[in-house]
Amino acid sequence: MNGQGALSGGWLAIAGLGPGAAGMVTPEVSDAIAAASDVIGYIPYVARVAPRPGLTLHPSDNRVEIDRAGHALSLAAAGARVVVVSSGDPGVFAMAAAVFEALEAGPASWRDLDIRVLPGITAMLAASAAAGAPLGHDFCAINLSDNLKPWAVIERRVALAAAADFAIAFYNPRSRARPDGLDRAFAVLRGACDDDRPVLFARAVTTPEQELRIVPLPHARGDMADMRTVVIVGSSRTRLIARAAGPLLYTPRSIA
Amino acid sequence: MNGQGALSGGWLAIAGLGPGAAGMVTPEVSDAIAAASDVIGYIPYVARVAPRPGLTLHPSDNRVEIDRAGHALSLAAAGARVVVVSSGDPGVFAMAAAVFEALEAGPASWRDLDIRVLPGITAMLAASAAAGAPLGHDFCAINLSDNLKPWAVIERRVALAAAADFAIAFYNPRSRARPDGLDRAFAVLRGACDDDRPVLFARAVTTPEQELRIVPLPHARGDMADMRTVVIVGSSRTRLIARAAGPLLYTPRSIA
Repeated sequence: MNGQGALSGGWLAIAGLGPGAAGMVTPEVSDAIAAASDVIGYIPYVARVAPRPGLTLHPSDNRVEIDRAGHALSLAAAGARVVVVSSGDPGVFAMAAAVFEALEAGPASWRDLDIRVLPGITAMLAASAAAGAPLGHDFCAINLSDNLKPWAVIERRVALAAAADFAIAFYNPRSRARPDGLDRAFAVLRGACDDDRPVLFARAVTTPEQELRIVPLPHARGDMADMRTVVIVGSSRTRLIARAAGPLLYTPRSIA
Repeated sequence: MNGQGALSGGWLAIAGLGPGAAGMVTPEVSDAIAAASDVIGYIPYVARVAPRPGLTLHPSDNRVEIDRAGHALSLAAAGARVVVVSSGDPGVFAMAAAVFEALEAGPASWRDLDIRVLPGITAMLAASAAAGAPLGHDFCAINLSDNLKPWAVIERRVALAAAADFAIAFYNPRSRARPDGLDRAFAVLRGACDDDRPVLFARAVTTPEQELRIVPLPHARGDMADMRTVVIVGSSRTRLIARAAGPLLYTPRSIA
């Protein structure tokens, strides 16, 4: 931590725990948690932090991101050493943006806090690695869960992403707020892509419950994903290599 | 390693070293390197691996990715424990796709090899974290270096990404093969975006040489990037928070 907020000694780190496996938590994140007085986050992510004397855990429910962010900033301003934990990377559809929204709307003194974002392995990178390298060429990431994002915007983005021939990673494909979002996204893609376009459903990647399923786009259904799934749709160049141990899915580096 | 290729005992891991800082190398990657007999990669990445007895380092020049991939596969097939190292994440514009291209074109026996991809912190995540959270909403990643990709394809992708209102991460913005690519990409964006669109130049992120510069799109120039820079262009919603310690750049979670 770089010494801002030195009057109080408090600091705030917004840290990514990666997709699940302990071997994918960076040393930087482990060190921040080891130095923390308070860890704040959504219940299942805080559950990944081992209790110890001197550390207060603050698990909170989902969908209270802004409250959680304000709590973290208040604690740090009062001198606490605070780590806000996210799954994956905190900057990708996770807590970092929520903390900055709260910071921007909060007291001016919060802008003097020592605040850092510690990156993590985001779900699409772990899913891609588990299946091969489907994100090996240009790609995009679209969050299907945001219930404040009008559907027309999502549909337009999906259509433009297909026109650009990006591989597409869909985060939060089965949110409660929009359970049919993934089926609607697939419908848009079926209107724009060939039938052999592969779709990867990567569930609970890097955990003991990991499941990978690859189906061609015409067979892809929204109910093949749940809240622990990230979905990657290949580009027109994405290929499957057949193997006894299971297929490898990858996108070559060149479109030529 | 999961035991395929058990006849030879060899295996191949394609590993991401992250953007530069030792604290961002995952334990999984460190463990693979500790177990390896051979480490293969581009010279500056192999230089990040400490020599030790029993480990052979194979540094190679840039632009020989397919030769390097074939070498790695041959060594693993002969029983070596091989780690191919990439900067960042091996699945994002790096060695994983090259290895799978070589595997697909090579002898059928290579398909029985024990081969895994070990993800890493890719440059855009580290750059985003260093600046705030500019990738906090939907975004895309475009590689400007691939000299096999026709310029018309890049230009079309950039225009579609702007139409979709993605934040955009440009990798390899100043390749020798296409030194004017970034200026041409900015020209496309200037035709589609407002003048207050922020552009982040993040050089050598997480290293002692790290430099961050944020300029509005009309002032962005290709020569503000070098071969160690990743460039992130905000979406229409990306915001700057002024602070004494330097601005925070972030994209709110919602477009509403």
